[in-house]
Amino acid sequence: AGVRDRQPMDRSVDFPVSVVLPAGGTGERTGLQTPKQFCSVLGRPLISFTIQAFERVSWIQSIVVVVAKEYMDLMTDIIQRFQHKKVQVVPGGKTRHRSICNGVLALGEATREEGQMLAADRAKVVIIHDAVRPFVEEDFLYKIAMSAKEQGAAGAVRPLVSTVISTTSEGYLDHSLERAKYRASEMPQGFTYDVIHQAYQRCTESDFEFGTECLHLALQYCGTNAKLIEGPPTLWKVTYKRDLAAAESIIKETLSQSACIITGGSAQAVTLADALQKAVGALDTELDITPDLMGDNSKYLLEEWNFIQISVSHSCLSEVEAILMDLEAVNRALLHPVVVIWVHLNGLDELSVSRKMAVPAAIRDLASAAKLRNILVYGIQLHQSADTERWERSVLRVAEITSTLIRDRSPALVGQLLQA
Amino acid sequence: AGVRDRQPMDRSVDFPVSVVLPAGGTGERTGLQTPKQFCSVLGRPLISFTIQAFERVSWIQSIVVVVAKEYMDLMTDIIQRFQHKKVQVVPGGKTRHRSICNGVLALGEATREEGQMLAADRAKVVIIHDAVRPFVEEDFLYKIAMSAKEQGAAGAVRPLVSTVISTTSEGYLDHSLERAKYRASEMPQGFTYDVIHQAYQRCTESDFEFGTECLHLALQYCGTNAKLIEGPPTLWKVTYKRDLAAAESIIKETLSQSACIITGGSAQAVTLADALQKAVGALDTELDITPDLMGDNSKYLLEEWNFIQISVSHSCLSEVEAILMDLEAVNRALLHPVVVIWVHLNGLDELSVSRKMAVPAAIRDLASAAKLRNILVYGIQLHQSADTERWERSVLRVAEITSTLIRDRSPALVGQLLQA
Ligand SMILES: [Mg+2]
Ligand SMILES: [Mg+2]
Repeated sequence: AGVRDRQPMDRSVDFPVSVVLPAGGTGERTGLQTPKQFCSVLGRPLISFTIQAFERVSWIQSIVVVVAKEYMDLMTDIIQRFQHKKVQVVPGGKTRHRSICNGVLALGEATREEGQMLAADRAKVVIIHDAVRPFVEEDFLYKIAMSAKEQGAAGAVRPLVSTVISTTSEGYLDHSLERAKYRASEMPQGFTYDVIHQAYQRCTESDFEFGTECLHLALQYCGTNAKLIEGPPTLWKVTYKRDLAAAESIIKETLSQSACIITGGSAQAVTLADALQKAVGALDTELDITPDLMGDNSKYLLEEWNFIQISVSHSCLSEVEAILMDLEAVNRALLHPVVVIWVHLNGLDELSVSRKMAVPAAIRDLASAAKLRNILVYGIQLHQSADTERWERSVLRVAEITSTLIRDRSPALVGQLLQA
Repeated sequence: AGVRDRQPMDRSVDFPVSVVLPAGGTGERTGLQTPKQFCSVLGRPLISFTIQAFERVSWIQSIVVVVAKEYMDLMTDIIQRFQHKKVQVVPGGKTRHRSICNGVLALGEATREEGQMLAADRAKVVIIHDAVRPFVEEDFLYKIAMSAKEQGAAGAVRPLVSTVISTTSEGYLDHSLERAKYRASEMPQGFTYDVIHQAYQRCTESDFEFGTECLHLALQYCGTNAKLIEGPPTLWKVTYKRDLAAAESIIKETLSQSACIITGGSAQAVTLADALQKAVGALDTELDITPDLMGDNSKYLLEEWNFIQISVSHSCLSEVEAILMDLEAVNRALLHPVVVIWVHLNGLDELSVSRKMAVPAAIRDLASAAKLRNILVYGIQLHQSADTERWERSVLRVAEITSTLIRDRSPALVGQLLQA
C-alpha cells in the first residue's frame, strides 16, 4: 500500500492536475520537537513519502509544498537530497487557509512566469492534501480529480469512529448525533482551479482566520456543492507519536514484500535457495531465485527487491560487492534502505568462516561503508550437514533470520555474521 | 505509559468499583481473521494487556469480561495462562448493549452467589471499558469512578480529530459542524450500579438492538446527566492493523526504559559498565549498575528491568544461567519477554570466544531453552583494546547493539553472539 505499485494503473486524465500540500504546521500543539511532517521514518522525513505518493502519479503535473518560513531551507534540502521533481516550495501564511491560498496563487504564477517549465497549461484541477497523510493512492486521487472536474469540488470522507456528542457549557452530555447521518471530512480534496481561486478571492478575513473547510468555502462563495467520496482507511493522518510507529510499520511491511536470492548458478546454492523459498513462503515474503543480476535479471535492481546472496565455500564477499555496485549504479537506495544478506554455506568439513579471522572483519567493513549509502548488509553462516533433520533446522533458521533482518532493517546490526 | 507504573498512585476509593469489559466482537467487520482483542502483541493477546491495566489498580475489585460464546474457552485459557485474578468471564449477547447488560447482571449475581469470593459489597460504581483500549491509566479511571459516584454517570471524551460534516442523501456536502461544540465520545464510562442497572431494565428492545451510547440510556431512562471528562490520547481504540503496530511500539518502548548491568564486581567489568552507561544515556534507556542480584539488589528482578551481564575472560555462561534461574523463580517473564544480554569482554591477547567452538553452541542452546520460557538471551563479544579510539568505538557499538536488542525483542535473533 503506497510505497510500491507493481502494477501502476494507467489512468487517462486529459486535463492538467496540480497538488497543493500545506505543511505549515510548526508542531507546537503536539509537543514533539520536530513537526510531524519532518519526522524521520527509516531515515527519510515523512513529507518526502507524501511527495513521492504524488510524484509517481504520471498525470500529476506539479506539486506546491507550502511550509512555514523557518522550514523553507529544510524543505529545499529535503527536495534536493531525495531528488524530488515536480516540486515547488512556497512560504506559508499564518493560518491553514492562508497557506493553502498561497499555494493556489503560486500555481497561477508559476504558469505565467515559468510556464513551459512547470506545466503546459494552468492546472484545471487542484488537489489539496495533508503532508502527514503519506499513504494516499493513485486510484483514490483519480476519483477525486475526476469528481472535482465534473462537480467543481470533491472531498474524501470516512465513517465516524466514535459517537459524536454535543456538550453543555457545564461539561455535561447534551445529546449524541445519529452516526449514520454524519461523516468525518478527510483529505485529499479536489477543486477546479477556478472554484478554489474564486473562493479565496471572495472569502472574508474571518474565514482566513477561523475557517476549517475548503469545501465549505466553495459552497459559500461559489455555490459549488462538493461531491463526497468515501476514502480507504489508509488516508489516515499521522497525528500522534504512535502514528509514526504505525507509519513506519506500514512502510517496513511494504519494503519487505519480496526478496531475490542470487545463487551464482551453483547447484548447492540452488538447492538451498529452493529450500529457503519453501520456508520463507510461510513468512509472507515473496522469494524469487535468480542466478545473477545480469541481462533480463537486472530488473530486480529496478524494483523494490531485497537481496540474498548465497555463497558456497570458496566464493566470498566479492559477490556482495558486485551487488552493492549494481545497486549504486541505479541509485536504488535513494528513497529507502535496501537490505542485502550474504548467506555463506560452509562445506561439510570446512572451517567456519567466522573462525577465519579475515571474514568477520571484511563483512563488517563492507557493511559500514554500505550503510553510509543506505544499504544494509548482514551476514548469515550455515553449515552443510549430512543429517537431514539438522540441515532442515538450519534452513528454517536462515529463513527466520532473513525474514527478521528484512523486516526490522536494523542499522545497528549491519555487518554481523549470524549463525544459522 | 500503561504497562509499568514505577510510582503507583495510592488513590483512596472508599466504595466498591467493578469493571465490565465487553469483548464480544468477532472481528467480522475488520477483515482480520482474529478479533483484535485476541490479536497477539509480543506473544500476548491484547485483551490481557487491558485486563492487566485494571488488575493493577488496587481499588478495583472485580472485572467481568464479556465474550462471544465461541471465544469463551479461549478467554478462559488466556486468564489461566497469564494468571489473571479478579476476572470472571460471561457470554455475550447479540449486540454490544446486550453484552454489557449481561456483564452488569453478572456483577449482581456474583455478589449474591459467591459474595465473599469476589467482593465484600455489590459494586457501587461500574466502569465500562473496551477490550481494545489497553493503555487506560489509573488516574483517569479514578476521575471516572469519582464522577460516576457523584453524578450517577461519567464518560471520557476527546476533541474531534476531523471536521464532522453532514451529507445529503445524494452524497453531497450539506453542512459542517462547528467543531468546538462537539466531542468524540470514548471509553471508559462509569455509572453507579443503580443507574446502569435501571437503564437496562427500562430500555426497549430497539435500544438493545440499535443503541450506541450507555450515557444516552442513562439520560433517557434515569434522567442522569453524564459528566464528560476529557481523556488523554492514550485512550485510543485499536481499530486497524496499523493500530496493532502502534500498540506494539508503545509496549516495546515501555519495556525498554531500563536495563541493569551486572558486573560481578570485576574492575574491568565496572569500567565497561560505566562507559556503557554514558553511551546508552543518549539512547533513552536508563542503566543501573549492580555487582549482583542478591540481597537488596534482587529488587531488579521484581520490576521491569532488562539485564546485561558482563563477563570477563575466564568467566562464562554460568552467570547468565544464574540470572535465568532468578527470573524464573519470581515468574518475571509471565506477562512479557525479558531481555538478557551476555556481554563477553575478551582480554587483550585472548582467543575470541566465537572461535572457541563450544561457546557459540552453548549460548545458542541456552537461548533456545530460555525462549520457551519467554526470556530472550543474546550475546555480544567485544575485545579489550589498548587503542583508546578503537576501544571507544567498540563500547559505542555495544551500546547501540544492546539498545537495539532491548527495543526490538526479536525472537529470531536469540542465541546469536554478536561482535562489537
Ligand atoms: Mg496506486
Ligand atoms: Mg497509572
